[in-house]
Amino acid sequence: MSEELGITVKKDEDISEWYQQVVLKAKLADYSPVKGTIIIRWQGMAVWEAIRNFWDPAMKEHGVENHYFPLFIPESLLKREAEHFEGFTPEVAWVTMAGETPLDERLAIRPTSETIMYEMFSKWVKSYRDLPLRVNQWCNVVRWETKMTKPFLRGREFLWHEGHTAHETREEAEEEMRWAIEWYRRISEELLAVPVVVGRKTESDKFAGADITMAIEALMPDGKALQMGTSHLLGQNFSKPFEIRFLGRDEKNHFVWQTSWGISTRMLGGMVLLHGDDRGMVFPPRVAPIQAVIIPIGFEKVPEVLEKARELKALLEGEGLRIRLDERKEYTPGFKFNEWELMGVPLRIELGPRDLKEGKMVLVRRNSGEKSSAEFSDTGAVKDALEGIQQDLLNSARELMKERTAEVEELEELKEVLEERKWAIINHCGREECEREIEAKVTGGPRVIPEEGGEPSGGCIGCGKKAAYRVYWARSY
Amino acid sequence: MSEELGITVKKDEDISEWYQQVVLKAKLADYSPVKGTIIIRWQGMAVWEAIRNFWDPAMKEHGVENHYFPLFIPESLLKREAEHFEGFTPEVAWVTMAGETPLDERLAIRPTSETIMYEMFSKWVKSYRDLPLRVNQWCNVVRWETKMTKPFLRGREFLWHEGHTAHETREEAEEEMRWAIEWYRRISEELLAVPVVVGRKTESDKFAGADITMAIEALMPDGKALQMGTSHLLGQNFSKPFEIRFLGRDEKNHFVWQTSWGISTRMLGGMVLLHGDDRGMVFPPRVAPIQAVIIPIGFEKVPEVLEKARELKALLEGEGLRIRLDERKEYTPGFKFNEWELMGVPLRIELGPRDLKEGKMVLVRRNSGEKSSAEFSDTGAVKDALEGIQQDLLNSARELMKERTAEVEELEELKEVLEERKWAIINHCGREECEREIEAKVTGGPRVIPEEGGEPSGGCIGCGKKAAYRVYWARSY
Repeated sequence: MSEELGITVKKDEDISEWYQQVVLKAKLADYSPVKGTIIIRWQGMAVWEAIRNFWDPAMKEHGVENHYFPLFIPESLLKREAEHFEGFTPEVAWVTMAGETPLDERLAIRPTSETIMYEMFSKWVKSYRDLPLRVNQWCNVVRWETKMTKPFLRGREFLWHEGHTAHETREEAEEEMRWAIEWYRRISEELLAVPVVVGRKTESDKFAGADITMAIEALMPDGKALQMGTSHLLGQNFSKPFEIRFLGRDEKNHFVWQTSWGISTRMLGGMVLLHGDDRGMVFPPRVAPIQAVIIPIGFEKVPEVLEKARELKALLEGEGLRIRLDERKEYTPGFKFNEWELMGVPLRIELGPRDLKEGKMVLVRRNSGEKSSAEFSDTGAVKDALEGIQQDLLNSARELMKERTAEVEELEELKEVLEERKWAIINHCGREECEREIEAKVTGGPRVIPEEGGEPSGGCIGCGKKAAYRVYWARSY
Repeated sequence: MSEELGITVKKDEDISEWYQQVVLKAKLADYSPVKGTIIIRWQGMAVWEAIRNFWDPAMKEHGVENHYFPLFIPESLLKREAEHFEGFTPEVAWVTMAGETPLDERLAIRPTSETIMYEMFSKWVKSYRDLPLRVNQWCNVVRWETKMTKPFLRGREFLWHEGHTAHETREEAEEEMRWAIEWYRRISEELLAVPVVVGRKTESDKFAGADITMAIEALMPDGKALQMGTSHLLGQNFSKPFEIRFLGRDEKNHFVWQTSWGISTRMLGGMVLLHGDDRGMVFPPRVAPIQAVIIPIGFEKVPEVLEKARELKALLEGEGLRIRLDERKEYTPGFKFNEWELMGVPLRIELGPRDLKEGKMVLVRRNSGEKSSAEFSDTGAVKDALEGIQQDLLNSARELMKERTAEVEELEELKEVLEERKWAIINHCGREECEREIEAKVTGGPRVIPEEGGEPSGGCIGCGKKAAYRVYWARSY
């Protein structure tokens, strides 16, 4: 592989340029002819599909039913909940023409589907017997970002899923919100090997129309926080304007209590940023499009090598692993090593005439470069190696998070910590104007009030008044 | 279940009203606040997911890579292939505003993705080593229908998948087109139990920009044909304007040969029309959201019934079956029977105190009403019943198709046959103006030139000249 094919900048030196090269060269995504949008290529889609394959059955098990709602939301419907509309309107793409005919009412391309879904909920819910109602859809959404876009991390269109539920009581809805965020934590940590802090957003930062927003936030290598998923307790903020009422067990009418929650292809950006290195992408094995690549060596001279390589491929695929065999004759093994490293395949299996003679294969781990030898056809060794890589990636990321988290009591210290590419835990009084004042003095903003943050001791970092909570503070994507 | 909850019109008497009731009441879909669009509800989505779960791995096995392309296509790009643009422009929804800002160039909501995909193909394909290139996406598309819309059958937005491939030779591309249509035949017949005729479209009827369009067409109970899927040989019609060139094995530059193919949620409409009956929906077991419903009888008095019913559910689910246990106490068994029949569940399992005593369960088939008894926990009997229903549905539909297909030699006869709610096979000369003349005299139009249609004997039904082929003629959805 020639120099230009590889990554030409170091992650540490210019993470932004590095990120774009990895995304493009490892075929996770490509730029599209429409500014601010991307094409998700097969290496990106495969990860999104792995997330879906893990999460969709868990939702169904929980009683969630998949639906598909229209892309278009009439303006009048989007406006029904005022705060929600205010939150989204600057980013809405509007359809105004169909064929050569102007439309009577312009149609928003969904930035999220609360309004169109809840219009239907009011038809579907009549009695407590219809509750809980749990609806999900996997779809595309559009938010016309005016800030600089970045593949996966910020774009004008992305893929996501959005779950929406309606319940008899606030308690039940709150439990549902927590159920979803806990699954998002698992998806992030167990699949993508991206550790997160789970917590709730401050008042200023929550979703437009929510009572409580919970989020999972991950620390990126540049010290910025990345929001990987959110879950909202909507209370009765939508059920009132949308008139979603049910006849209760008490034979009286009540408004339902609601939640909504979602994760998006943004998660893929976090995975790339955290695990990629100077040689390219590194996929966590559980979501890797190709989990292991077999490179037969010297098979032009010893055809048996290729035969055995094919046998090994079939054997591993039989165990449910995703395997690629690189049979190309026009490239050297060295070229192939580099290319598959760039592409992020977690495990390389080398098979040469000598290995063959000894009944062995060589396993090389993408993340550490560690080489080991195993009996040919020892599929367990391959699985163990993959599981080991998965754990190592998560552990390294946890290590990074620990190193880069600082408890801070003074504003000056906060400033320094942020400059050192860390995030901080501070005490805060909980007042919005105080939050604004701190934001004016340092970079970044509040991320989440951690679930397991403990009680604040001492005063607010901003105003010195009694602290209401401990909150993560960081720059963010 | 009260009268109004059930279907209030007979399929034979008013198939259009019947169809809408079944779709709505069996929770396949609902009308949305946006005219011409629907909400696909869980019973509809589950079928679409079953199709995806069957077809997606087969595509991957064949080397197809899933991608996701932007929803938006700039007008200039959509225009690049003139015939294609002409074909779609009357139905395009246009985005002209983002937030409060008018866009410099209006953006089409994709009616199909040839143009945006091929813009990228020209970047991705350099050499014969990059071929064949096989790209697929599962997504939503928008076509602003001005004719009367109908859930699944014709709407302004639908879900589909679109496969797009590029090849070195025309022969290879043609083979690919046939590969796809054969899989569509399998999906239609083996999953949905909807038998089809496979053939190619006449010149007047093919896809805008294709050299050859192949289609699968199904006969509906009202004698209309429904197109269930298409596969196109695009030749070099797009590779030339989009400049998709490759360095060939001969070291010269060539334009690629292309195909595109797709199936959509329209298929669901065909399944409903064909298999539903006066009591509601009938799902083919392989795609049924719920394959069997267990109705415990008298469990209020004999709690053991419910225990055993739960045991049975777990047992059947352990075999990979999709089972619902109806434990509701507020409804009678009779009400439940009707409701689950309306909902189309192919098999009902009744379990009462007497069955329990005898160690039995009762199986009732939705399509025929046939009752049989089986040993409790004989999961094989349940599977056999489901497989039997699947085959019966396909066989009945094949029977219907046979009865309703007539070979016709004279125009008068064609008219009669169409009025009898049949479709016809006619000889035709292949000239477009002759096709138009026939269309002016009878209802319907050409559907497909069947693959296994045999040679025409005798003259064209329209002009009497030498026939070029035999072609199916029918009214259509």
